[in-house]
Amino acid sequence: MINPFFNNVGPFKILELIDLDKDSLSSSMDLSKNDTLIYDVKNLKEATDKDITFFHSVKYKDLAIKTNAYACITQSKFFHLLPDNCIKISCDNVLFLTATITAKFYPDSITDNNNYDLFNINEKFKDIVSGKNTIIGLNVAIGKNTKIGHNTIIEKNVKIGNNCFIGSNVIVRNSIIEDNVHILDGAVIGKKGFGFFPNNFNNFRYPHVGYVHIKKNSEIGCGTTIDRGSLSVTVIGENTYIDNQVHIAHNVQIGNNCIIAGQVGIAGSTVLGNNVIIGGQAGISGHLRIGNNVQIGGGSGVVKDISDNRKVMGYPAKNFRKFIREGSQK
Amino acid sequence: MINPFFNNVGPFKILELIDLDKDSLSSSMDLSKNDTLIYDVKNLKEATDKDITFFHSVKYKDLAIKTNAYACITQSKFFHLLPDNCIKISCDNVLFLTATITAKFYPDSITDNNNYDLFNINEKFKDIVSGKNTIIGLNVAIGKNTKIGHNTIIEKNVKIGNNCFIGSNVIVRNSIIEDNVHILDGAVIGKKGFGFFPNNFNNFRYPHVGYVHIKKNSEIGCGTTIDRGSLSVTVIGENTYIDNQVHIAHNVQIGNNCIIAGQVGIAGSTVLGNNVIIGGQAGISGHLRIGNNVQIGGGSGVVKDISDNRKVMGYPAKNFRKFIREGSQK
Amino acid sequence: MINPFFNNVGPFKILELIDLDKDSLSSSMDLSKNDTLIYDVKNLKEATDKDITFFHSVKYKDLAIKTNAYACITQSKFFHLLPDNCIKISCDNVLFLTATITAKFYPDSITDNNNYDLFNINEKFKDIVSGKNTIIGLNVAIGKNTKIGHNTIIEKNVKIGNNCFIGSNVIVRNSIIEDNVHILDGAVIGKKGFGFFPNNFNNFRYPHVGYVHIKKNSEIGCGTTIDRGSLSVTVIGENTYIDNQVHIAHNVQIGNNCIIAGQVGIAGSTVLGNNVIIGGQAGISGHLRIGNNVQIGGGSGVVKDISDNRKVMGYPAKNFRKFIREGSQK
Repeated sequence: MINPFFNNVGPFKILELIDLDKDSLSSSMDLSKNDTLIYDVKNLKEATDKDITFFHSVKYKDLAIKTNAYACITQSKFFHLLPDNCIKISCDNVLFLTATITAKFYPDSITDNNNYDLFNINEKFKDIVSGKNTIIGLNVAIGKNTKIGHNTIIEKNVKIGNNCFIGSNVIVRNSIIEDNVHILDGAVIGKKGFGFFPNNFNNFRYPHVGYVHIKKNSEIGCGTTIDRGSLSVTVIGENTYIDNQVHIAHNVQIGNNCIIAGQVGIAGSTVLGNNVIIGGQAGISGHLRIGNNVQIGGGSGVVKDISDNRKVMGYPAKNFRKFIREGSQK
Repeated sequence: MINPFFNNVGPFKILELIDLDKDSLSSSMDLSKNDTLIYDVKNLKEATDKDITFFHSVKYKDLAIKTNAYACITQSKFFHLLPDNCIKISCDNVLFLTATITAKFYPDSITDNNNYDLFNINEKFKDIVSGKNTIIGLNVAIGKNTKIGHNTIIEKNVKIGNNCFIGSNVIVRNSIIEDNVHILDGAVIGKKGFGFFPNNFNNFRYPHVGYVHIKKNSEIGCGTTIDRGSLSVTVIGENTYIDNQVHIAHNVQIGNNCIIAGQVGIAGSTVLGNNVIIGGQAGISGHLRIGNNVQIGGGSGVVKDISDNRKVMGYPAKNFRKFIREGSQK
Repeated sequence: MINPFFNNVGPFKILELIDLDKDSLSSSMDLSKNDTLIYDVKNLKEATDKDITFFHSVKYKDLAIKTNAYACITQSKFFHLLPDNCIKISCDNVLFLTATITAKFYPDSITDNNNYDLFNINEKFKDIVSGKNTIIGLNVAIGKNTKIGHNTIIEKNVKIGNNCFIGSNVIVRNSIIEDNVHILDGAVIGKKGFGFFPNNFNNFRYPHVGYVHIKKNSEIGCGTTIDRGSLSVTVIGENTYIDNQVHIAHNVQIGNNCIIAGQVGIAGSTVLGNNVIIGGQAGISGHLRIGNNVQIGGGSGVVKDISDNRKVMGYPAKNFRKFIREGSQK
């Protein structure tokens, strides 16, 4: 992902990013004379040979061995899972160091500062049909025949396609919304995720330089919240319909033609395939992979990966028939 | 229900509604010379001999045999469950054909187009005490001594009784609200339901020509969403109190004197009796019947009908004592 | 708690508060000539010898025996659990009588009447950076360097510290917010709780004379609702982070350095220690005590007290390892 919205103040030399004088840090090779410029911090898959990346869980080893990153923050026990030519930086808390470096590249991404340079939509977008008190920030593009309701706030860094319908009391920021998407009343799209490092007295907030990408023909229900990614993108696939009061956390990726009923919650970084159907109030833990054509019963709690074509229910979610059978015995 | 809000562009002859040239459609009697006018599409119970209805699940057979409808869309295997004099139309997807016909009668009911002819409430309702930036649409009636907060949007087709209290940031449309009802901050009442036919690339949205009816003395909590019915009415009974962040889906009917705690979700078309008490975060599946005086423990998942006076808990919900006993053994 | 926001119209003589001519009421001592003035109604812990209190559940017996209250509303079977010198009033429905007395002291606390004397924030708070359409009521104080978004409503009785961040579409009333607190878009803070006495035809609402106290460095997510206490304070501890769509009911007290993920619900009067971590969609019943350093898995349903340092999961919540083991056997 080339960051479309946040201002990258790099490049930096590696030693400007990492203080190797600290006891807790060490490198797989001598960096004392290294003055190569690092241009960005990206995930294992997207990092190029001009970027630094991070590798914090063995879960991602298949991506690690193929990374093109110039350098990688990790633990020394994972050094052998990375390519030979990648400089490995060992540290105690991989994500914390990554966050510190991200904040150095993107100093504006820690919190959602209110945006005070908004204007009434009718002042600049004379062709857009919109309601009362709707305001719009800088760096906003809106396509043809898109309609926007009342009291809606489109903050900066938003691109909305053609033939979209945005309801009333909606808040959108840092988002790309394709054609023919419906966003219903009171939804909040593109807020920073709930990511931080716990720290007594004052937690350290993780930078969120990602954005939300809602693909064409999708619908987002009333009061639903979709947080933007930290280093990645939060994606809602094509023709995916999401009901009211759903929460989609940062970095989640949802496929095409999915149906997600009311009050569902999907925790951070989980990836869903296509044609997934989720019943009301179901919850899915973070960092999971849910296959294609999966059906998850209402109220279920999913704590493990689910392979393609399965139908599960319960907490922890199990085979649907098994759940019904056990439930009726009781 | 005589539709109070949506504009019926009928009547139509039956062959204008149903294309019998399609292979998938057939009729129980010859319609080639039938030019009777059909005036509306209604459910089995409410349809008159001038209307068409639909019968898609054996669950509704008791209503089917008594329907007065002129014609009924169903599957051929259900023909014998309908009155002799009712014309039966057989098709593969009953609900889809019903939706198509509904859309023909009510072309404005597919989506909630924003309503752009709103005005500041103080311009027309000079006697209503209301806050700043509150706007109101056409075809709105407000009773005596009703008070409305700030930034609230009353779109078209709303009737509010006397002595009501409407908070701030509330959105209401297509609703009848009786006397002495309280609707708290941020609630969204009368939005179209989450109903559509899945279809790769572009789902087909079900028309929602119903409305929401909130009976006297009830209370609706902050951020709660109550969707309007598709062909029926979504009903909240008298003196029923609903807490924050509850979701009531389309066509749900709730009785009198019920208590529904925070974050409960009730899926489409479920019917609750009187004096039902539901603990926080409980979920109830769609198309169920919950009796009078039922108590449902917090966090429960109800997937079957519940008869009068029962107390249940768990997921799937079972007898309350059994749940507590099993839980403590573990 | 000395009530900072609600107007106490007392004192009253005890016989002005309690009608001993009613059959259902009796006193532990003769009150016919008692003209001592009662100044307030408070809970067992906070009541002084000028106040009346109430004792409705044996759960609170440790507080009862130490109360300093002049008089206490209770059941006769609990008389021996109260100090000798405390006047005991016996009645059938302790909470109902307490509510009636509270309403007598605080007649404005039954409902959240809309506040119509708000003004645009820029008219009075010229130094505060704030967005469009943000309005503010009487008795509001805002600290230095605090920033407020768009369409936000700060009703009366709010004190906000320094360096706070308040998003857009937020509603706050009856709340004390310390320094460096972040409240994100669409949160509703300080609304009256969901407390009332069920009563066919017309429930009796419990007065809510408490407030919400959010301590320094905390964060409250989008669409989260925190209700104010009835007689006590709803407290969010220091450096406690709460995600989107969480519901915190009246009188809940949360400690410092807690982490509460999305869509969690905590029912009334429950007390959480410090360093508690709660996964998404978990629910906690009312009137429970959750110890320090407790971890509650996502989707859990907690129905019993939890002692310090435990890690639980499931519904009803049990030891974490047990839950995982049982789940995988199935």
